[in-house]
Amino acid sequence: MSVSLGELAVRFGCELHGNPDTLVDGVAALGDAHGRAISFLASSRYRRQLAHTRAAAVILEAAVVAECPVAALVCEYPYATYARMAAWLHPQPPIIAGIHPSAVIGADARIDPSAHVGAFAVIGAGAAIGARAFIGPHCFIAAGASVAEDVRLIARVTLGERVTLGARALVHPGAVLGSDGFGFAPERGSWVKVPQLGALKVGADVEIGANTTIDRGAIGDTVIEEGVKLDNQIQIGHNVRIGAHSVLAACVGVSGSATIGRHCMVGGAVGIVGHLSICDDAVITGFSLVSHSITRPGVYSSGIPIEEAGVWRRIVARLKRIDSWAARLAAVERQTNISGAAARSEEDE
Amino acid sequence: MSVSLGELAVRFGCELHGNPDTLVDGVAALGDAHGRAISFLASSRYRRQLAHTRAAAVILEAAVVAECPVAALVCEYPYATYARMAAWLHPQPPIIAGIHPSAVIGADARIDPSAHVGAFAVIGAGAAIGARAFIGPHCFIAAGASVAEDVRLIARVTLGERVTLGARALVHPGAVLGSDGFGFAPERGSWVKVPQLGALKVGADVEIGANTTIDRGAIGDTVIEEGVKLDNQIQIGHNVRIGAHSVLAACVGVSGSATIGRHCMVGGAVGIVGHLSICDDAVITGFSLVSHSITRPGVYSSGIPIEEAGVWRRIVARLKRIDSWAARLAAVERQTNISGAAARSEEDE
Amino acid sequence: MSVSLGELAVRFGCELHGNPDTLVDGVAALGDAHGRAISFLASSRYRRQLAHTRAAAVILEAAVVAECPVAALVCEYPYATYARMAAWLHPQPPIIAGIHPSAVIGADARIDPSAHVGAFAVIGAGAAIGARAFIGPHCFIAAGASVAEDVRLIARVTLGERVTLGARALVHPGAVLGSDGFGFAPERGSWVKVPQLGALKVGADVEIGANTTIDRGAIGDTVIEEGVKLDNQIQIGHNVRIGAHSVLAACVGVSGSATIGRHCMVGGAVGIVGHLSICDDAVITGFSLVSHSITRPGVYSSGIPIEEAGVWRRIVARLKRIDSWAARLAAVERQTNISGAAARSEEDE
Repeated sequence: MSVSLGELAVRFGCELHGNPDTLVDGVAALGDAHGRAISFLASSRYRRQLAHTRAAAVILEAAVVAECPVAALVCEYPYATYARMAAWLHPQPPIIAGIHPSAVIGADARIDPSAHVGAFAVIGAGAAIGARAFIGPHCFIAAGASVAEDVRLIARVTLGERVTLGARALVHPGAVLGSDGFGFAPERGSWVKVPQLGALKVGADVEIGANTTIDRGAIGDTVIEEGVKLDNQIQIGHNVRIGAHSVLAACVGVSGSATIGRHCMVGGAVGIVGHLSICDDAVITGFSLVSHSITRPGVYSSGIPIEEAGVWRRIVARLKRIDSWAARLAAVERQTNISGAAARSEEDE
Repeated sequence: MSVSLGELAVRFGCELHGNPDTLVDGVAALGDAHGRAISFLASSRYRRQLAHTRAAAVILEAAVVAECPVAALVCEYPYATYARMAAWLHPQPPIIAGIHPSAVIGADARIDPSAHVGAFAVIGAGAAIGARAFIGPHCFIAAGASVAEDVRLIARVTLGERVTLGARALVHPGAVLGSDGFGFAPERGSWVKVPQLGALKVGADVEIGANTTIDRGAIGDTVIEEGVKLDNQIQIGHNVRIGAHSVLAACVGVSGSATIGRHCMVGGAVGIVGHLSICDDAVITGFSLVSHSITRPGVYSSGIPIEEAGVWRRIVARLKRIDSWAARLAAVERQTNISGAAARSEEDE
Repeated sequence: MSVSLGELAVRFGCELHGNPDTLVDGVAALGDAHGRAISFLASSRYRRQLAHTRAAAVILEAAVVAECPVAALVCEYPYATYARMAAWLHPQPPIIAGIHPSAVIGADARIDPSAHVGAFAVIGAGAAIGARAFIGPHCFIAAGASVAEDVRLIARVTLGERVTLGARALVHPGAVLGSDGFGFAPERGSWVKVPQLGALKVGADVEIGANTTIDRGAIGDTVIEEGVKLDNQIQIGHNVRIGAHSVLAACVGVSGSATIGRHCMVGGAVGIVGHLSICDDAVITGFSLVSHSITRPGVYSSGIPIEEAGVWRRIVARLKRIDSWAARLAAVERQTNISGAAARSEEDE
């Protein structure tokens, strides 16, 4: 597909600096772009590559247009504009309506005629599949689950009972949505399973990564609000609520009944303890442990970067004795009568 | 399904405070319960909700019965009693005996006539499926694997060779039981695969979460004893043994040849190093690293809660220099002749 | 299968100490071996078991041959030799050429006549399956993906678009190779999906564990070089490159655009931040956070081993105040005029 810079500028609301008749046919990274590709500059990380790019045009902010050696498509959000342009230049194959002859469809399942159901899919009794939905091969949709219009389950996605997916939700292979939560009651040395009777409600425009798991609620519901983006291998416990437009990177674990606000950003492998609450607009850097509620927007961390192993072992040994260092420092302060510090030290004990 | 409080009290061994003829038909959380639901109070966390509940009755301990504004079902283990009552009020659909016509059954597979084998299941040659077992859609049971009576594989569960599941084991979608362990022998800069020849033995009443993986043994066996509960996305390496009735929360990783005792509780995302041993009744809080054996029951931790990111960066910078602080403190002690402390300081060096 | 020690010694290049006519038929651990099994000693951890072994023969290094109470097969790499011998004594079942009648094969897919395609496999249009490849049940190979000769996908492996697997790659159940990377552009409070247009290239002799996920590149490619070994439940982000013969233990997460060198060893549950680079021959111990590039070979760590929980809480409380300890120590040094230390303290501030 070939398109002129002029048409791109009009279609995506950019100010064009350059020849509107130049044709492009795809996208590429700044450093790899050839003569018919457009590229973008969205991070200062790549700014030094701009001077040497061979792209046909670069999508960028007005502030850097002077540094651009080729045509420029100037806009306010270059990365978002790139994303839309790339999707338009490299369109998804169209959804082919129809049910593969191998699929097994339960009684009373309502499947919109415009939806696609792939090979070896299993749709339970009473399940509902919306208009233009794409249910890939090997998907299993349990009895009564429902999938709104334009949902895409790439392949091998499992939807348990009482799961609803909002419009345009996109789910990657291996995800398990609506599994039993982890609930057991202790009784004389063993565990009694607590029935998991709640639902999982996933809003519109949510994306869920490969092999991510989300449990249904125990009594109430697990809720993923609209626009949330979940990366691969995330685990969400029962009765969790994640606010709209929050993003969670891969390998995050969220324990049961935690509440995450709107517009939060959670880094990779973060652990979030159950029954706590995180306010809107919180940012948690990767590998952190959230074990108390967060009440003010801001950036939070508890990860420790690597050291050379011998150095690290010595640091850990010292850390493990930090309590005695503190006591000894207080003793020194008292006995040398260091003013001020000594007073503080009493408080600290 | 409607039942009287009187019948519930008799059936589940509770002392009823209230009208035995009141009818109930389901369960709900204390705060959400309507007039025909029973609820429960099992944690002091929810005690303040008790006074305002509109449940028909609340399952609770004798100690709090005076605070209950509605009928009370008094018993020793309210949460376990709730679990049993909820399971009885919201029963699982019955297992429908028979093999789906699409399933592929290997030669000499022994499938009990009362078992259910779902759509697109693949049962290998010589595999055995016990009475009333439920093998959901898309399950794969390798040649020779065996599944005891009343096992439930919800959907899309993979059982490798030499895997045996005990009675009533419940396995959630995406779990892979009996995959190859991670064994490679170094040889001149590359790796030679070590054949994984052992078995995986899973005891009775074990529950295994969605997308959890458990490797077979390398030479000996991997063993999960009866009553163990594994949450989602757990990884268990080859030759691990987990003692009866231990519970592991989501995202835990257990490296090869580790042994975990009975009645242990392991929090989310804990890492357990290989070739070590954890005694019975150990509790490990979430996000901890177990890199040496645990020989005494107790609670163990090494997770660090988040701080505001700027504060945390400063803490980490100080921590990385802790070795020099220790040396400087010792120098101060020596030069100011702080008695006692100075002596201790020599020992510490 | 029965074989003499003499034949084993010749076939695997060992020096035999013992009767060449002794017959063996399998392998076992040193402590469990019966009279017709061979065992091996590859780690000093098991050396004390050598004196009591009842194995027919033990594979070991020349240095310990004098301690061996039974026949010895002496070689330079006992563990690698054991691995080869075990594979030869316990051979994999042969690949049975042919396509299961239930498999769904897309238009123009090229499947080598010697390959095996299992039950309910779905092979997309234009995909290529090499000679003697084994595509297990429930695998999904997207349109255009390709799999070289002797690849084995055990069962339920998903290969997305633009994925290529090199010769002899071995992939365990539940792995998702070539899923969309996690790319979103912020725009007025919500997120625009960035099309993931790159490929995933997996080299020869790579092994990939159960439920591991690897994303395709965003614009460029994700590359796993030859001989890399990935354990279970690993997550590899888009545009990552992993150098030849590196090994990653279970639950590791590698963020987008990170580069890992050749012959690296990464312990379990390590987190690697995006856009950084790790040199060849780096070793990272389990549970560490790599948040800056590594430029020198060596061993790196940041995990902290557990303590008894009460002790640990006190350590963390002290750690959180480490900044004030540092200031107080500096104050003591200044006011007591500790020479040298005081000077250093000024620099440190």
